[in-house]
Amino acid sequence: MTQTKPSIDLSSLMSLCKRRGFIFQSSEIYGGLASTWDYGPLGVELKRNIKDLWWRKNVWERDDMVGLDAAILMHPQVWVTSGHVANFNDPLTECKSCNARIRPDHIKVIKVVSSEGQELGLVSYNGAMAITESKELRERADAVAKAAGQKFGKYEETGTAADFPIAQVPCPQCGAKAGNLTEPRLFNLMFDTYLGPVKAEDKKVFLRPETAQGIFVNFNNVLTATRKKLPFGIAQVGKAFRNEITTGNFIFRTREFEQMEIEYFVKPQQGESAYLEWVEDCLNWYCNLGVKRENLRIRPHDPEELSHYSTGTSDIEYMFPWGWGELSGVASRTDFDLKAHSNATGQTMTYFDEETKEHITPYVIEPSMGVERALMVFLLDAYNEEEMPAGGGKSETRIVLRLHPALAPVKVAVLPLSRNEKLAPLSSDVFNIVRRSGINGMVQFDDSQSIGRRYRRQDEIGTPLCVTVDFDSLEDKSVTIRERDSMQQVRVKTDDLVGELKKRLGG
Amino acid sequence: MTQTKPSIDLSSLMSLCKRRGFIFQSSEIYGGLASTWDYGPLGVELKRNIKDLWWRKNVWERDDMVGLDAAILMHPQVWVTSGHVANFNDPLTECKSCNARIRPDHIKVIKVVSSEGQELGLVSYNGAMAITESKELRERADAVAKAAGQKFGKYEETGTAADFPIAQVPCPQCGAKAGNLTEPRLFNLMFDTYLGPVKAEDKKVFLRPETAQGIFVNFNNVLTATRKKLPFGIAQVGKAFRNEITTGNFIFRTREFEQMEIEYFVKPQQGESAYLEWVEDCLNWYCNLGVKRENLRIRPHDPEELSHYSTGTSDIEYMFPWGWGELSGVASRTDFDLKAHSNATGQTMTYFDEETKEHITPYVIEPSMGVERALMVFLLDAYNEEEMPAGGGKSETRIVLRLHPALAPVKVAVLPLSRNEKLAPLSSDVFNIVRRSGINGMVQFDDSQSIGRRYRRQDEIGTPLCVTVDFDSLEDKSVTIRERDSMQQVRVKTDDLVGELKKRLGG
Repeated sequence: MTQTKPSIDLSSLMSLCKRRGFIFQSSEIYGGLASTWDYGPLGVELKRNIKDLWWRKNVWERDDMVGLDAAILMHPQVWVTSGHVANFNDPLTECKSCNARIRPDHIKVIKVVSSEGQELGLVSYNGAMAITESKELRERADAVAKAAGQKFGKYEETGTAADFPIAQVPCPQCGAKAGNLTEPRLFNLMFDTYLGPVKAEDKKVFLRPETAQGIFVNFNNVLTATRKKLPFGIAQVGKAFRNEITTGNFIFRTREFEQMEIEYFVKPQQGESAYLEWVEDCLNWYCNLGVKRENLRIRPHDPEELSHYSTGTSDIEYMFPWGWGELSGVASRTDFDLKAHSNATGQTMTYFDEETKEHITPYVIEPSMGVERALMVFLLDAYNEEEMPAGGGKSETRIVLRLHPALAPVKVAVLPLSRNEKLAPLSSDVFNIVRRSGINGMVQFDDSQSIGRRYRRQDEIGTPLCVTVDFDSLEDKSVTIRERDSMQQVRVKTDDLVGELKKRLGG
Repeated sequence: MTQTKPSIDLSSLMSLCKRRGFIFQSSEIYGGLASTWDYGPLGVELKRNIKDLWWRKNVWERDDMVGLDAAILMHPQVWVTSGHVANFNDPLTECKSCNARIRPDHIKVIKVVSSEGQELGLVSYNGAMAITESKELRERADAVAKAAGQKFGKYEETGTAADFPIAQVPCPQCGAKAGNLTEPRLFNLMFDTYLGPVKAEDKKVFLRPETAQGIFVNFNNVLTATRKKLPFGIAQVGKAFRNEITTGNFIFRTREFEQMEIEYFVKPQQGESAYLEWVEDCLNWYCNLGVKRENLRIRPHDPEELSHYSTGTSDIEYMFPWGWGELSGVASRTDFDLKAHSNATGQTMTYFDEETKEHITPYVIEPSMGVERALMVFLLDAYNEEEMPAGGGKSETRIVLRLHPALAPVKVAVLPLSRNEKLAPLSSDVFNIVRRSGINGMVQFDDSQSIGRRYRRQDEIGTPLCVTVDFDSLEDKSVTIRERDSMQQVRVKTDDLVGELKKRLGG
């Protein structure tokens, strides 16, 4: 009966997200803040659901896991030990003229060639510039040709600034001639700020670039307080910050983001099997929440991608509109982190194995995922446009988010057939009963416009169930439950409504 | 039968929090980071419960409220408009010698007086220094006397550096003589950092010092997406940061903290009544979650404390171990914020009143509370030490956290009478059934030590219910539920266990 179109493109998703209140540009009335996003009334519920489901599954439903919530600000030496101060860098060249800092491999370089085919010099531009439309680029090429005493002939695409001596590349930003770009230097991706009023080096702290280190430094405290036995894990959800040079693809790569991370500690000989289990577990988490298996893949890192201490890392990838992209990572990190912190602080960070009577440093498996990326994937994968017969031989398009009920921001919408004073009291009663029934999420009431339009509005935001109150309801004490995906309707007694709704929502 | 002692002092609370895994000092193995705290396995659950209960009550159970989750990083102009760039300041004096920056009213100043009663000069110290024990202070006083050609006689306490010309006050930090402290200047309490690689003024951004502004700047977006009618509110939970000069009292005042804020928009003429309702509502929130009414009070701000635009502000205060302290604030802010952002951006930020056919700027009531302060109050208020008969005419002390069940980090503990292979299978079954029953929170299993000690361990962390599996259970398919506060025990069929537990936990 219905036909399903392929998934949504990015700009349509962004438009839907803004229109329906999932995601707004941060500080939009001030012109926005680059690659920063706010989560609106529906977005915040979806985000909460993702985090709560992850917590329930990984903490509450396991007996080998406890939670943690470490502060964003940590002792700066933590990031020296972790390697982030030394190694968490991008190489950047700086223009002496305009002070722009740019990654050389993001600077597109083209040769300017005379009509006789003679190479006259280079011009450059950054990726965002549309070369064929750019008057500015043409002027730069003319200037290069003129300086060589020639007329501009044509462009010859050649690569990026990383392929040339930087001294030969003009500034892509302001057009300053070759010689103005400095040798690339490493730029640390951690945001820094100062604790207290003095901006001195010894007061500098970082916004954590990952939540993981908060777990490692608390290993002893957690072990002492909980008396957990290996294998056990510590789970954490929280914000992290990276001063990325390249952001974009909506909420895919942003400077402020939220992570859900686990450090799962095992005896060294269990490292390999635990790693493989967690890779499967991470993949299944998405599948169990409705993401189509064919849109996911496991990509083990090549040996040259691996950190020197890692015995294996796999990404869970999703087929985004622009291709495969990372969604989660699972890393087998050996005893590197605990030993590094132990060496740096002089604190013993070991576990006493009662079987062998030995103090051992556990190995650790680190499953890590981004909340925003998960949210984006759930939206992308749930989005459907369906052609439906609309009578008279015509068809209409139904937009429906086929979100797993546990993810849906609105669980139930209560819809009187029409805005009518006879229906109002019962509709209101039904709404209040459902809203206070302990259903884990939002319940909406809507009595505007036609019932058909209201169903479409709820379909578009993924509401699994609508409850319709009609004039028969006043007589038969029954209401209609309408199911989002099948659009099937069933009549139930109002007394049985809450139980029926909970059953259909899965608990 | 039992007798209750007064509440816990701060250092005992901190010790309990560390020992049982509620709260650890941040980066403790690195010597800690000043006034920054991490929430351990129990603390993170308590914190989650507080936030979830607040969200459920204020968002899900109301039909006049929606949620929001704005980013921590916002456009810097937001903080110009809000007044935080200009006015969110502490006055600080700086020592030219050691570069310490200190609030003048935190510098204690004493006169050095010769034995003949002649004033010889001033010495200073900061509050943390214990004057009578300080050899250093004595040496400083000797130096002052010597410079005046006299022998030191005695101290005469006089006040703080705010009471003297700053040029007469020596540095309390390094002891540099009078004349080294600069005139106090204002120091902004917002943390700043830089977006992107260039540390230029126009790339400076702030870590938000409050969540409220994220709501105001999204007013139009939320209104358009949700089509809400006045009165309605927008609720938000999230981190905020203040570079406080004075921190302390455990988690009471920290530089990184979490807020639960509402901006409740009303027609101007409803401002006063909505304000009064929200003050009551905030107070009741704590009472309904078990905080004793006599430990709470409402303190309306004096007219001179009020912001110029506010028509009324009240704090909800709690009787902390050091006296009354702020727990929540409710402010009636008129149309100040929306108008300020509208003026700054040129965007219309009004609401169309369908009754009067007018575009109006709503008034706003702002109930605001801190998650960590709420957590601290719930712990303080729940803490009890009870003297209980221990047989033989002796008594023992039972520590019990009388937390509201909805707040308790562990909802149910499953305890086999002893660690025994006969009891193990059934105990394990019971544990798994309870853990996966949909109870909203953690369920623990503990088979170590004596049953009495395990009850005490659960009492100390506020677990409302223990389920004991004993040898009779193998025969009668029943287990014992033991209630934390009354210590009463009832026998229930394992088939009825989940229902009984849920009933006792309140749904």
